[in-house]
Amino acid sequence: MVEVKILVTVILGLMILHGESEYIEYNTSQRIVPGKINVHLVPHSHDDVGWLKTVDQYYVGANNSIRGACVQNVLDSVISALLEDKNRKFVYVEVAFFQRWWRQQSEILKIKVKQLVNSGQLEFINGGMCMHDEATPHYIDLIDQTTLGHQFIKKEFGQKPRVGWQIDPFGHSAVQAYLLGAELGFDSLFFARIDYQDRAKRKDEKTLEVVWQGSKSLGSSSQIFTGIFPIHYAPPDGFTFEIHDVSPPIQDDALLFDYNVKERVDDFVTAAVAQDGRVNALYSTPSIYTDLKNAAGELWPLKTGDFFPYADRENAYWTGYFTSRPAFKGYVRMMSSYYLAARQLEFFKGRGSSGLNIDALADALAIAQHHDAVSGTEREHVAADYAKRLSIGYAECPLLNISYCPPSEAALSNGKSLVIVVYNPLGWKREEAIRVPVSTEGVIVHDSDGKEIESQLLPLSYASLSIRNYHVKAYLGRSPGETIKYWLAFSVSVPPLGFSTYIVSTDKRAGSSTISEVYTSQGNKDLTAEVGQGNLKLLYTTNEGKLARYVNSRSLVETSAQLTYSYYSGYNGTDRENQASGAYIFRPNGTFPIESEGQVSLTIMRGPLVDEVHQQLNPWIYQVITRIYKGKEHAEVEFNIGPIPVDDGVGKEIITKITTDMVTNKTFYTDSNGRDFIERVRDYREDWDLQVHQPVSGNYYPINLGVYIKDESTELSVLVDRAVGGSSLVDGQIELMLHRRLLHDDSRGVGEALNEEVCVLDKCRGLTVQGKFYIRIDPLGDGAKWRRKFGQEIYSPLLLAFTEQDGNNWTNSHVPTFSGVDPSYSLPNSIAVITLQELASGRILLRLAHLYETGEDKDYSQMTSVELKKLFRTRRSTKLQRQICLPIKRELKWRQRG
Amino acid sequence: MVEVKILVTVILGLMILHGESEYIEYNTSQRIVPGKINVHLVPHSHDDVGWLKTVDQYYVGANNSIRGACVQNVLDSVISALLEDKNRKFVYVEVAFFQRWWRQQSEILKIKVKQLVNSGQLEFINGGMCMHDEATPHYIDLIDQTTLGHQFIKKEFGQKPRVGWQIDPFGHSAVQAYLLGAELGFDSLFFARIDYQDRAKRKDEKTLEVVWQGSKSLGSSSQIFTGIFPIHYAPPDGFTFEIHDVSPPIQDDALLFDYNVKERVDDFVTAAVAQDGRVNALYSTPSIYTDLKNAAGELWPLKTGDFFPYADRENAYWTGYFTSRPAFKGYVRMMSSYYLAARQLEFFKGRGSSGLNIDALADALAIAQHHDAVSGTEREHVAADYAKRLSIGYAECPLLNISYCPPSEAALSNGKSLVIVVYNPLGWKREEAIRVPVSTEGVIVHDSDGKEIESQLLPLSYASLSIRNYHVKAYLGRSPGETIKYWLAFSVSVPPLGFSTYIVSTDKRAGSSTISEVYTSQGNKDLTAEVGQGNLKLLYTTNEGKLARYVNSRSLVETSAQLTYSYYSGYNGTDRENQASGAYIFRPNGTFPIESEGQVSLTIMRGPLVDEVHQQLNPWIYQVITRIYKGKEHAEVEFNIGPIPVDDGVGKEIITKITTDMVTNKTFYTDSNGRDFIERVRDYREDWDLQVHQPVSGNYYPINLGVYIKDESTELSVLVDRAVGGSSLVDGQIELMLHRRLLHDDSRGVGEALNEEVCVLDKCRGLTVQGKFYIRIDPLGDGAKWRRKFGQEIYSPLLLAFTEQDGNNWTNSHVPTFSGVDPSYSLPNSIAVITLQELASGRILLRLAHLYETGEDKDYSQMTSVELKKLFRTRRSTKLQRQICLPIKRELKWRQRG
Repeated sequence: MVEVKILVTVILGLMILHGESEYIEYNTSQRIVPGKINVHLVPHSHDDVGWLKTVDQYYVGANNSIRGACVQNVLDSVISALLEDKNRKFVYVEVAFFQRWWRQQSEILKIKVKQLVNSGQLEFINGGMCMHDEATPHYIDLIDQTTLGHQFIKKEFGQKPRVGWQIDPFGHSAVQAYLLGAELGFDSLFFARIDYQDRAKRKDEKTLEVVWQGSKSLGSSSQIFTGIFPIHYAPPDGFTFEIHDVSPPIQDDALLFDYNVKERVDDFVTAAVAQDGRVNALYSTPSIYTDLKNAAGELWPLKTGDFFPYADRENAYWTGYFTSRPAFKGYVRMMSSYYLAARQLEFFKGRGSSGLNIDALADALAIAQHHDAVSGTEREHVAADYAKRLSIGYAECPLLNISYCPPSEAALSNGKSLVIVVYNPLGWKREEAIRVPVSTEGVIVHDSDGKEIESQLLPLSYASLSIRNYHVKAYLGRSPGETIKYWLAFSVSVPPLGFSTYIVSTDKRAGSSTISEVYTSQGNKDLTAEVGQGNLKLLYTTNEGKLARYVNSRSLVETSAQLTYSYYSGYNGTDRENQASGAYIFRPNGTFPIESEGQVSLTIMRGPLVDEVHQQLNPWIYQVITRIYKGKEHAEVEFNIGPIPVDDGVGKEIITKITTDMVTNKTFYTDSNGRDFIERVRDYREDWDLQVHQPVSGNYYPINLGVYIKDESTELSVLVDRAVGGSSLVDGQIELMLHRRLLHDDSRGVGEALNEEVCVLDKCRGLTVQGKFYIRIDPLGDGAKWRRKFGQEIYSPLLLAFTEQDGNNWTNSHVPTFSGVDPSYSLPNSIAVITLQELASGRILLRLAHLYETGEDKDYSQMTSVELKKLFRTRRSTKLQRQICLPIKRELKWRQRG
Repeated sequence: MVEVKILVTVILGLMILHGESEYIEYNTSQRIVPGKINVHLVPHSHDDVGWLKTVDQYYVGANNSIRGACVQNVLDSVISALLEDKNRKFVYVEVAFFQRWWRQQSEILKIKVKQLVNSGQLEFINGGMCMHDEATPHYIDLIDQTTLGHQFIKKEFGQKPRVGWQIDPFGHSAVQAYLLGAELGFDSLFFARIDYQDRAKRKDEKTLEVVWQGSKSLGSSSQIFTGIFPIHYAPPDGFTFEIHDVSPPIQDDALLFDYNVKERVDDFVTAAVAQDGRVNALYSTPSIYTDLKNAAGELWPLKTGDFFPYADRENAYWTGYFTSRPAFKGYVRMMSSYYLAARQLEFFKGRGSSGLNIDALADALAIAQHHDAVSGTEREHVAADYAKRLSIGYAECPLLNISYCPPSEAALSNGKSLVIVVYNPLGWKREEAIRVPVSTEGVIVHDSDGKEIESQLLPLSYASLSIRNYHVKAYLGRSPGETIKYWLAFSVSVPPLGFSTYIVSTDKRAGSSTISEVYTSQGNKDLTAEVGQGNLKLLYTTNEGKLARYVNSRSLVETSAQLTYSYYSGYNGTDRENQASGAYIFRPNGTFPIESEGQVSLTIMRGPLVDEVHQQLNPWIYQVITRIYKGKEHAEVEFNIGPIPVDDGVGKEIITKITTDMVTNKTFYTDSNGRDFIERVRDYREDWDLQVHQPVSGNYYPINLGVYIKDESTELSVLVDRAVGGSSLVDGQIELMLHRRLLHDDSRGVGEALNEEVCVLDKCRGLTVQGKFYIRIDPLGDGAKWRRKFGQEIYSPLLLAFTEQDGNNWTNSHVPTFSGVDPSYSLPNSIAVITLQELASGRILLRLAHLYETGEDKDYSQMTSVELKKLFRTRRSTKLQRQICLPIKRELKWRQRG
């Protein structure tokens, strides 16, 4: 968030001034001096990979009217300073920048820099492409972005970073501690931002340094030594020496006015230590510091869980960014899944040198994990830059564009058939319904064997059509050529890591697709409507137009259930505390239910494959309040929210609440970056006695996979399609924040209100966000299976590619079905392929994830074996090696207190 | 005025991008390409030797809350950049900074820097300690500050600067062109600031490059090639690359977004040339440019006179700074004279290694010539820093303190005698009255032969006593111990470059000093009062309390004469043009006579040596309206102005007017840095048709020596004791601006109103300024003699040193009189010693000035010879060599147009 900050060259204490006017070389050699307080001076940069400016603007020093910052100059000057004095040290973090710089250096300089790295003067820490956010990215993205950076460091310098350095992200996740820390082979992790109450207690009790065990499942093997800064990551007051900083320089020329060496040494000692005592200062790195701490053999307190949410002071909970820029968050998640699938396909096809590859998408996705990128805390034009990079990367991937679907609309109207190739990136077979937009009702679907497939046409709502047209105009600058009328839904069956092909044609005999029956609740005499044709049924009160009950006839779960919307009005920051709600901070100023004006009707569609209930709740909230697919036991909710009205001068943060009468005892569970579920208790922190000033925002947590609550008999799970913030503020209730539109900056540096707009011909309106979440209620103990398996399916939806054919020419000349996995095999339900990639070296990188934690599920929370040879039947080379970024045996042991 | 600006490394046009991702070394070698437009890129710094911060603060980068600026970093990075690429060049100007930096460099680096200088990569231009002001310094100070810098360059690098580089001063003087330019051996002179109307015409007529002939007397031998910048000295729009500048960087990495080499090259060509054509850019220096211009053999227009006054746009005449900080200007002039005398005494005594020497004063005086120092355009705290440096330098000089005179007051009251050594720094014998404060009336004065000297006691006015007490409290923090009652005046006779000794004692028989007779005009029946006992008499109307007539019975000049005060109210800058009167700019908003409230009395003192007329004009103007010494034919006016009242919210600029009925035809004459008198014609410029928007400030000129007007029979001369601004806005009238107190900043960067205050115990009031000017009216053609000879005596007053004795112990043990000049000799009246100094090398530096211009005086405007051996009788070595900074034979010839 703060860029280009260098803690430079505080070489006090090392200086002795000899004589007055003669030049004397300072002795800057240094070591630990026993018996003294040894102060480690860690010269480091902190360069945002995009924030107020785009990543390239920061690098080249462009757009300086926003912020004078130029990372290439930082690197130039740092390297030159290191070369001048071998006692100097520097740690570098963001490989996205370093890589840009490295590419432009001469071979001669590269050799010198390699020597600096070998000697330890220059050390890479963290070493990902960026210093990623910890709240809103998916763990697969964290692994991928870190891998990319580490591969560069390994390739160019033969080194492996030892230290995590997450000094700026706004809270710290358990997954960071164990998966991106201990499991990555890091010996230690350092960061600056924790809750102000937590910090005060830790400073008081001297527990700012802990051993953090982030994983229940991995236990003590996942521990990492963790250092929390006593204050922020800036230099101590009076020791910031950037060009325009006001700290008094060290003035050691006695012939000039204001000679101040004595005074500055005193200041430094004061800054370095509260108690009395002489101080030995040395240039250091976090690695050196870690080794010395380890060698001291002390006992360290144990920390479990995570460091969310983060408040830097009263009323300033950084929980708004869990949801900020929801459309961008959704796009990042979609690209993440696409990248995973694209690598698999590249692997199956062979990487080759055809030109198009996944590298651009890899880079774009990596920097999108930056703590001012997917977090939503960058400026608007920077968010656009990240999105542009993703779209370029996406277009360069060797797959077809599936976003705007012109083929599906155009092909049929030209009398041709539409060929749909459906790819399944998961290791197990999937049978589910997919949907494509069509412009005519006379259609029929066949599989690649020519067998007709049951299909259903769902009329497109005016709301969907309108937002589609608007976005095409806004982003492509033209009107869509075809007017689509329906969603065509049909069931597909796709083998693990494989694809199937389906053909959609127009049929002169009006086709076989069933047009959904459509009912409107308005004027309907029935008081309730029942939706769902299988085990799961949802009941609606038609007069109120509201969800009332959830019934599963198989599991015998039956409960009252409501789905409602509300908004929090954002603080405008004009009160005496001057803290507005903004991109980072969520500070509500009252909550207001969003009710329809007058009676609101439900539109119910039924058909052979799916039942849907639609509702225009108000002019700016349209929802598919329920969608239940045949054979599925969860309800899907699709929301269209926006433009959020702000004509009243009030920013609004839109939430949805799922309310049951479950007795949940203040407790709920949210995931850590899509992996471990962590228990949250309302108004409570495990590490300190929480003073509650913000009963809403202080109970918000980041959600990447889902959130659940449970009582004695059931558990309610809600899964999400992107990062959102959420909580359970009332027993039996889950709330998710889905969209935010705010009118004030929250004074944390971004200097822009989070007021996203979409413009057509310079006319702008608030952004409309489309997304989904998924609801299921299970008997107690049964929820994990759905959360894990279906959660993986949400992350990796079936991927559709389109083409068209006249007659049968395409299906005749192409392989219509394929599976990378031996037909006799599929991965266990507890295992997911999170990376399958052919590296540039030709070697294959495979990462498998066990989806279940210890004790999470009675069937799946156990060791599982995978038959790797059956996973790799298509490639001859099955010789597997452990790759970088998989767990590495660490040598340092840490002793745990008490 | 603008600091730390580097025109850096625009290496466009030289770049060719090879390939995309590979590092390719740019070929930065360069040369003039015939047939192309060759653009000289001149990387230079512009570092203010004090302005918004003090000189040391700029150097070390302290006080950055005012301005982030650190010259040592500029030099570090420039040298390192030059060492990296031998094609790069840099010119450096301010030796005061370079010297500070040089002292702190290692021998190894010094050798490298010497190589850079030898190869021409680093070139010193201008080469004085600072880039001096051209309006308000005395030419002797300009020579001295330049000498100091050039001596350093000569000693360390064996080089001699070739180019004048006065890019920031606010107008340009004739003395700069010929004395500090051509005569110094410079081949060219470059600057940026000339009147906006002048510039427009020159741009139009392509006469921005001229041959400037600054001296009538030296004629074509004083010509210098002069380049005026077409716009200011900043880089062209879009090519400023300071850390926080907004110019688009040159982005040559095609793998990043916003690659812009083509576009930036186009921008550069556009910026470099208005007409079409390809451009060849090269790193250059003004020297290289000058040589190429010279080799081209073109014809250049001739420029005579100077470039005053300067207006950067309508209503923005930079003529306020001619007077800004009048007390500081007076202090600088006093120190200048003291430095001249101190060097002489050091020469006579032998420099030795006693510790105390003139070096600190030399340094302090040098940087006080900076264009934001003596100009008065620095911030208040910076002015205080300059003054502090001067006072330290003064205290380290091997002479006694003469400013506060405790000995003269204390000695007599202790019954001891006061010994006064009177030094005459001029080359001719002087007989004039001196005055010292005493606290008792019973005093007697003897010369060193024991002969009683006639003396006169003048009662101290309440106004003088009060300001003395206030300043002692303000600056020394205590009350003066003694209450002084009188000025004791007596005549002294001092040999050339020598001293005499006088002893003042208390005499029990009430002494022999004559107490002045004091009359008050109030209640006096006479209508007029006549003052002056010799040839010159001034007549006053006692009822009005005003000067009425000037009569010289010897020269038969008799004329009406008035002396009045007025003020201009300063523009407050809130009008639509938003230009206030301030430190730089004089923009009056109406003129108001300063009249006494009710009848104002004159106090007339008469005695054997001097007649004085005192007047308290109003509560804040007290003046010795006339002081005429026996045997002198000029009137001395001493003014005490301040605190200027600003309770009405209006800034005021105080002027005095000397009014006669002479018919002067809009014409007046002001000096150039104390040397040449230049003819000024009201509302007229020789070089262009002046559009008059500011009839007052647009006719103001800087005055260092004096100003005169003439008609068919007489000439009226007014000489000054410091730099002031002045004009003749009405025929027969001369006006001087004596003090300014303003409440608004004039938006030229200093960011502070020129509102000088003096504080005692945190209670502040406006500054009171004390000063003198001198009036004389001569028959036409006789004025120059007085202006030149007496002008030199004003610049070099007799210097008094004090001690005390019991009995005759001091006079018995010391040499009471001395002259450095052979007793049979004194310098001709037309010649002044402007430098007589023993250099650190032991060699002697002597500079003599001929005081008269061609045609200025019928007797003295001619060649004169000086008997050097008689000037050096006290030192054995009389072998003289030409020194640096004396005229140097230049090789370049310039052809003159038409």
